[in-house]
Amino acid sequence: MTTDKNGNLVHNQGVTAPLGFRAAGIAAGIKAKGGPDLALVFNEGPDYAAAGVFTGNKVKAAPVLWSQQVLKAGRLRAVILNSGGANACTGPLGFQDTHRTAEELATALSDWGTETGAGEIAVCSTGLIGDRLPMDKLLPAVTEIVHEMGGGMSGGTDAAHAIMTTDTVPKEASLHHPDKWNIGGMAKGAGMLAPSLATMLVVLTTDAVASAEQLDTALRRATRLTFDRLDVDGSMSTNDTVLLLANGASEVAPSQEDLDAAVFAVCDDLAGQLMADAEGVTKRVIVTVEGARGEADALTAARVIARDSLVKTAMFGSDPNWGRVLAAVGAAPVDLDPDLISVSFNGFPVCVDGTGAPGAREVDLSGADVHVLVDLRLGDGTATVRTTDLSHGYVEENSAYSS
Amino acid sequence: MTTDKNGNLVHNQGVTAPLGFRAAGIAAGIKAKGGPDLALVFNEGPDYAAAGVFTGNKVKAAPVLWSQQVLKAGRLRAVILNSGGANACTGPLGFQDTHRTAEELATALSDWGTETGAGEIAVCSTGLIGDRLPMDKLLPAVTEIVHEMGGGMSGGTDAAHAIMTTDTVPKEASLHHPDKWNIGGMAKGAGMLAPSLATMLVVLTTDAVASAEQLDTALRRATRLTFDRLDVDGSMSTNDTVLLLANGASEVAPSQEDLDAAVFAVCDDLAGQLMADAEGVTKRVIVTVEGARGEADALTAARVIARDSLVKTAMFGSDPNWGRVLAAVGAAPVDLDPDLISVSFNGFPVCVDGTGAPGAREVDLSGADVHVLVDLRLGDGTATVRTTDLSHGYVEENSAYSS
Repeated sequence: MTTDKNGNLVHNQGVTAPLGFRAAGIAAGIKAKGGPDLALVFNEGPDYAAAGVFTGNKVKAAPVLWSQQVLKAGRLRAVILNSGGANACTGPLGFQDTHRTAEELATALSDWGTETGAGEIAVCSTGLIGDRLPMDKLLPAVTEIVHEMGGGMSGGTDAAHAIMTTDTVPKEASLHHPDKWNIGGMAKGAGMLAPSLATMLVVLTTDAVASAEQLDTALRRATRLTFDRLDVDGSMSTNDTVLLLANGASEVAPSQEDLDAAVFAVCDDLAGQLMADAEGVTKRVIVTVEGARGEADALTAARVIARDSLVKTAMFGSDPNWGRVLAAVGAAPVDLDPDLISVSFNGFPVCVDGTGAPGAREVDLSGADVHVLVDLRLGDGTATVRTTDLSHGYVEENSAYSS
Repeated sequence: MTTDKNGNLVHNQGVTAPLGFRAAGIAAGIKAKGGPDLALVFNEGPDYAAAGVFTGNKVKAAPVLWSQQVLKAGRLRAVILNSGGANACTGPLGFQDTHRTAEELATALSDWGTETGAGEIAVCSTGLIGDRLPMDKLLPAVTEIVHEMGGGMSGGTDAAHAIMTTDTVPKEASLHHPDKWNIGGMAKGAGMLAPSLATMLVVLTTDAVASAEQLDTALRRATRLTFDRLDVDGSMSTNDTVLLLANGASEVAPSQEDLDAAVFAVCDDLAGQLMADAEGVTKRVIVTVEGARGEADALTAARVIARDSLVKTAMFGSDPNWGRVLAAVGAAPVDLDPDLISVSFNGFPVCVDGTGAPGAREVDLSGADVHVLVDLRLGDGTATVRTTDLSHGYVEENSAYSS
């Protein structure tokens, strides 16, 4: 649990922490091995403002194409999410499946007493790429989950469970602002918005009064510095989606600055939870590059280091092999002078002015957290990327995923 | 063994296959665990034309900085190579060590009867980054290896052994041209010129009559399509070096076209040997992208796929998870239309027009060779990259390299 000037972050409440949001998670039979695989987040109003950020991959899953279209109106009543299948690379029929899921949910919500159109519903999917979803199981479950959600004001944690794939724990965070409004969120995935290890799905909810434009601004500012800087393996999913819904139920309209800070705090916390639960992780590695010619160079250099397989395997082995950091940054397309570079591991200098520092080979990296700090000494550009080590567990989990 | 119209490639001869080249490999005590670690390639003349291609990493090892300088004159009498230490990130003192090694060899060769200057000697090093070389062991060994080489016209295989680091077998290839001239080479490393897994060192020799300019042209044409398209893990070494020496001893001056073809054939063969012996390799994976808008796009897309950890772990698991290929190529900074992409594994279509093909999940990838063919259907740009799977062996070998 962390505290900041905007309130207290807590981890045992998520999308249903704000007023006027309901959620549910059920087992629809989509996952071959069973277990919860369908989640619903429902906005009771009075407002329905919403914003979204999506994968930068040019190969986009059907639910991403659908939700991008829906979000153009800046309005959402509900989000339906499934694990057990990505519905990506499934062609026009896969898109029809997404459309039909939204229509089915609109009908079920309308029957339940809340007039809803399919165009007010975002759809998210995660799982194996390339297979059609089992619509014979999914469609009846869409009606079932509406009834389930009807039972009470909770369900956020059930929803967080239902979107898990290789996640080992559900991820939730919420913040209660001193000005009497709230924001909450749930996340799944062991990656980031772009790039990504596994699909990252995030739904954030708030009872603040905020326009779609304000939400969009806050969401883009937050994701740029949080999910977008979580880089487990440089891969980018076809399905990554981050949604933010606001219903104004608190009747409090925060300033843009307060909204930005709260959205950032929840995103940053969820990003940390995603890193800690990444596939096969044994080390949480923070890579900071400072002294670059501008933030863009710093970020590029940090990403190159964070993605380097030789750096990541050294971290797995608790091996302070700083030469691999030099080799990685030297390959980054940024301005640098090899003779000015300094590197420290967990605050211990291992390389000064491009050459090894005394005692560098004896630095103890056996703990679970490693901070790699690289100073290029050329300017004041700084950026930080979160990553993990490259372990046997990663290879094991990813070598037989579809089979 | 392969044959082409330019002659027969054989694998049991390397740098001493052409007339007028001597070589040796000895144990100098540089490697802590013992074994051969110093190699010499010596050109008896009458010509001393030479060309080199070096790592694109901005952090360059001292021997790379030295050899780049020497090669400006387009002339080499000898190459001295050591394993057991990269002499990278060692500052001005490390550069002095390289310089002193070249001077010591020049003196030893002159004493042996061949007047040689340090400026005619290239130096190559490979091993751990960041430590100074043990000059007390290296310098006496430089004189010793000249005497060793003086014993006979062979020694090429001993040299190929002495440059090995994590290599499990020495790599040699030579080609005897029907027009009565020869080219040979040796290589170490499990990577490529740029990028690279481990340092790649290659020395090629020919008894053809050729100018430094002709050699440079042939070498750049060959490396661009061979070593530069061997991408094991996207990392780039501080020490990668490829050298080509010509002495004219055959008195045959081949056309540029014949020289290009022969240099390419030997480089291509050595690149294949490097891939087959890459760290932890259990699969040899060839990624071809065709139908791109130009060769540059095809190469970029092929590299992104070849470097993708999720694709590589799937290959390790013999898992035909083609969706990961789509996700990888979709993240590549190239023009593409997701609905036009087709993918085959070993000739079996797994994805047609962006969606799964019947039977795709049952494709048998249990063999050691996998050919991934991606057709973007936008143009006629084609490129091929050699890579490997990402295995437990890779993680094991790289998680405790320096310790």
